[in-house]
Amino acid sequence: MKLYIANKNYSSWSLRPWILMREKGIAFEEIITPFSDDSANSPFKTFSPTGKVPCLDDNGTLIWDSLAICEYLAEIEPTCWPADRVVRAWARSAAAEMHSSFQTLRTQCQMNCGVRVILNKIDDTLRADVERLSALWCEGLQRFGGPFLAGRTYTIVDAFFAPVVFRIQSYGLSLAAPAQAYVNHILALPAMRQWYDEAMREPWRKDIYEKSVASYGLITADERIKS
Amino acid sequence: MKLYIANKNYSSWSLRPWILMREKGIAFEEIITPFSDDSANSPFKTFSPTGKVPCLDDNGTLIWDSLAICEYLAEIEPTCWPADRVVRAWARSAAAEMHSSFQTLRTQCQMNCGVRVILNKIDDTLRADVERLSALWCEGLQRFGGPFLAGRTYTIVDAFFAPVVFRIQSYGLSLAAPAQAYVNHILALPAMRQWYDEAMREPWRKDIYEKSVASYGLITADERIKS
Repeated sequence: MKLYIANKNYSSWSLRPWILMREKGIAFEEIITPFSDDSANSPFKTFSPTGKVPCLDDNGTLIWDSLAICEYLAEIEPTCWPADRVVRAWARSAAAEMHSSFQTLRTQCQMNCGVRVILNKIDDTLRADVERLSALWCEGLQRFGGPFLAGRTYTIVDAFFAPVVFRIQSYGLSLAAPAQAYVNHILALPAMRQWYDEAMREPWRKDIYEKSVASYGLITADERIKS
Repeated sequence: MKLYIANKNYSSWSLRPWILMREKGIAFEEIITPFSDDSANSPFKTFSPTGKVPCLDDNGTLIWDSLAICEYLAEIEPTCWPADRVVRAWARSAAAEMHSSFQTLRTQCQMNCGVRVILNKIDDTLRADVERLSALWCEGLQRFGGPFLAGRTYTIVDAFFAPVVFRIQSYGLSLAAPAQAYVNHILALPAMRQWYDEAMREPWRKDIYEKSVASYGLITADERIKS
């Protein structure tokens, strides 16, 4: 299987299937293509029907969305979802909520692994997103016993929130204690550290993403190598 | 099972699991709550953890996202997804693409079943959404033989695009011939006609949705009863 992804520093959607495959020991070839400034002729269009990443190519079968990729992998490796159907229903609801919602968090706190930011302000919609996130994580951790969101096993719902874990770190967002403990646990996973380290060594920068961060806050540190 | 939904005229996300359950003959109790203007005290918060619809309550197990509900139902009724895994991978990719993308189509052509509209203009981003939609539908219809997007059986991918079928009708968007034939076929399904007829008889109006339609185009007809 080939997994097409973009810059590790920025591409939150790429991280989801990548981290799931690493955590589950599913072998794949990683093909990384940095974001281009020429959106009309995006190089992603050469391998992805939507011109977006991630895209999985399993011997000619293309799966072009992060959630569809994870469901596809769950058919190969059933531990990708919780074994219990009620827990699985919770995990699928939470992953799907991440897939379609948290728009303000996404816009104002874009994934940019290497930077540390003090936000100019936290408005009501961003606060609502962070409070919902914190409540959702606490619910999973308490109902299913942790250390992962749906219990003792790393599943797709953890992979879906992996980019948010980096956002929490970058923007210093404040969570309830169990949710913050979860962030610390996830950041320490070897696969998350590998992604982070590789993101820090990328020379590529994308102007619109850098400008977006600077428009919402003050960058106080940057762990990336010089571009 | 109880399915919580909002106004049939407007609630595109509610339509997805509703139509799937009707097409698959899965019994459920429908609980309809109209959109409120008081978003801080949304009545949806009394039954949905996100304060959004749809929400499925299966004997106390809550599933609060349209895609998660459909995956949950597919575990009960396997024909909800195509039987072949390659076709299923395609269907899941297409449904997930609808779940997270087509933002311009959603914003400029909100579902409002009863109205017929001439859009003021079709800008490049809307055109790109419609062209992508048309290409995606044509791909499915041609690869898998129709009359549904993933072959001979109605599946979740059809349920996910059901709201778009109503948008095509309301806004007169132009599609390639096979995609338009698909629209006509879906609009004639008894369950779609039932949803439409019930939407037409709703007395409720929501100002911001009505104003949104009027801001993007000229309303030339309205099939709803007077509010």
